[in-house]
Amino acid sequence: MGPHPAVAAIRLAVRRVLHDLLTEHHRAPAAVPHALPDEHPPSSRLRSSRAVPSSPPLVLVACSGGADSMALASALAFESPKLGIRAGGVTVDHGLQPGSDARAAEVVQRLRELGLDPVDSVAVTVGRAGGPEAAARDARYAALDTAAERHGAAAVLLGHTRDDQAETVLLGLARGSGIRSLSGMAAVSGAGGRYRRPFLELDRQTARKACMVQSLPVWDDPHNADPAYTRSRLRHEGLPALEKALGKGVVEALARTAQLSRDDADALDSWAGQAEATVRDATGLLECAKLYALPPAVRRRILRRAAIAAGAPAGSLFARHIEEVDRLITGWRGQGAINLPGKVVARRQGGRLVIRQG
Amino acid sequence: MGPHPAVAAIRLAVRRVLHDLLTEHHRAPAAVPHALPDEHPPSSRLRSSRAVPSSPPLVLVACSGGADSMALASALAFESPKLGIRAGGVTVDHGLQPGSDARAAEVVQRLRELGLDPVDSVAVTVGRAGGPEAAARDARYAALDTAAERHGAAAVLLGHTRDDQAETVLLGLARGSGIRSLSGMAAVSGAGGRYRRPFLELDRQTARKACMVQSLPVWDDPHNADPAYTRSRLRHEGLPALEKALGKGVVEALARTAQLSRDDADALDSWAGQAEATVRDATGLLECAKLYALPPAVRRRILRRAAIAAGAPAGSLFARHIEEVDRLITGWRGQGAINLPGKVVARRQGGRLVIRQG
Repeated sequence: MGPHPAVAAIRLAVRRVLHDLLTEHHRAPAAVPHALPDEHPPSSRLRSSRAVPSSPPLVLVACSGGADSMALASALAFESPKLGIRAGGVTVDHGLQPGSDARAAEVVQRLRELGLDPVDSVAVTVGRAGGPEAAARDARYAALDTAAERHGAAAVLLGHTRDDQAETVLLGLARGSGIRSLSGMAAVSGAGGRYRRPFLELDRQTARKACMVQSLPVWDDPHNADPAYTRSRLRHEGLPALEKALGKGVVEALARTAQLSRDDADALDSWAGQAEATVRDATGLLECAKLYALPPAVRRRILRRAAIAAGAPAGSLFARHIEEVDRLITGWRGQGAINLPGKVVARRQGGRLVIRQG
Repeated sequence: MGPHPAVAAIRLAVRRVLHDLLTEHHRAPAAVPHALPDEHPPSSRLRSSRAVPSSPPLVLVACSGGADSMALASALAFESPKLGIRAGGVTVDHGLQPGSDARAAEVVQRLRELGLDPVDSVAVTVGRAGGPEAAARDARYAALDTAAERHGAAAVLLGHTRDDQAETVLLGLARGSGIRSLSGMAAVSGAGGRYRRPFLELDRQTARKACMVQSLPVWDDPHNADPAYTRSRLRHEGLPALEKALGKGVVEALARTAQLSRDDADALDSWAGQAEATVRDATGLLECAKLYALPPAVRRRILRRAAIAAGAPAGSLFARHIEEVDRLITGWRGQGAINLPGKVVARRQGGRLVIRQG
């Protein structure tokens, strides 16, 4: 008799990602001695684990102790030895709740019991930039990056599920800033493709079930149920109401939207990158007539790139800013300079668009 | 003292659309005698109203008697004489409720009281194809098309608001079929750009308020509050819950997403249209190696176009079908033919993709 279907599902998801990692590992050219990790091109990320040629690659799991990441840890512990991969774990103590250090120690203990080695607990200080959720996320990824580099890990697995992905798409939708913000989380992300999300097509219920049938104790982060957090409100109220109105397939539809939007956004970004070179004059200024001839979607991406290149912070540059700059091209009636975030100013002069700081 | 802000807002929205129509009208080349309406290129739609050169263009409003379309009718009645435009109205009796004929007669009466002329009531028979909402919509647009052609109308105004747009985006999201289905309703649509939606950036509350302050009686369609309808559930439960979780800007964000997605989808469709010619061999078959080199977003659009060209019905062709065909290119391991809707079969043969019926 095979494992419970939920356990089979989480293991299959992890096995696929480990296979991908091994394929990339074997495709990578021989290690370049003395090369720093940042100098490695993305596809050869795994070379950093080959500094000692005989040592097998190490894959870490980022684990909060919650059901998703505990399921992920258990599947990694089961699959990695069969593929000659070393498996370790990291838990991040955000220090946001009393006793978070004791809980982190407990997670470390559980990961060791699964056979993971090395296992780290990393305490971080969460700032305030961008709101509580963004600040915690920034601190967490910085800690995971550091841990991965310290151990020369080939990859860090993250337990985000299809449900997390659906929530992320809705959060992006609420920004109204276009399809890039609808594209959710990537299956592969981070410097050199370090972060992998094996559960992105798996639902949260499967991860929870897999923990239950494996008798793995899980910890429910009270933040996840705290209505002060947008994501929590979305999870417990917004998404269920949407499912009630639209039917059970909403989570899957949102996850598929993420993937399609990501591919579309990538294609349009590459088009804009290529088109940008063709719309500049000899002095490097953007020619309005040439911009006008482009599809609006491509033109606005070029304008956005130009504003960012001039010093506008990407996070503060909204669709409405770009629309206003675009009207210098499509609705020219002698309007004045447009002020953009980061003290960047866009103006039209002699059929050229001048976008610069100050 | 000027009009109430809500009345000013609906009039401004209508005035802008009427200005656009007049601009197109004057740009249009001289009328081609004996040309049938269908032979007119989109930009010269208004010529059909110039069959009698001296007659001013006629604009119809489609009116259910609800607040949105009554507000629209009142604004059209106010603005059109100032621009030398004739204004008429059409109400469609869907025959879905007892007494719908009497209500239609009442709407006709109200439109006449606003000074509109001609005013038609058109009774339709709603079929079942595609579900009750789609069937009613199909019957309604067919009736509006007929009315517009009978009167030689330059345009038909529709009362869809930003709230309707937000609902449409969410309905598209639930299909999970990509950014085209996120692009909602167009401000200009239909054969020759016949349909115009002046209120697409106006909220429902403004239309309702404008009716109130103008003492216009409005009719609340019981379908709009019937939880048997997806859109009604979305309006009364799904969207409010989403607003509660994500904040008040959700409707605006969804409407902006629609516009951005539409532009992106248009740009990618045009790319795919151009790229398609470059990936066919001398016999017209799609070359797998050339398809492989394209961005996934462009390749999948070409595959979709090819499947539809081979006879697959667009409405039954889902993202998962195209993904499976795509794996013949990106994940080739000798797999067999892929069955698509409409008895269309896709197979890989000698480095070519063969997509045909039967």
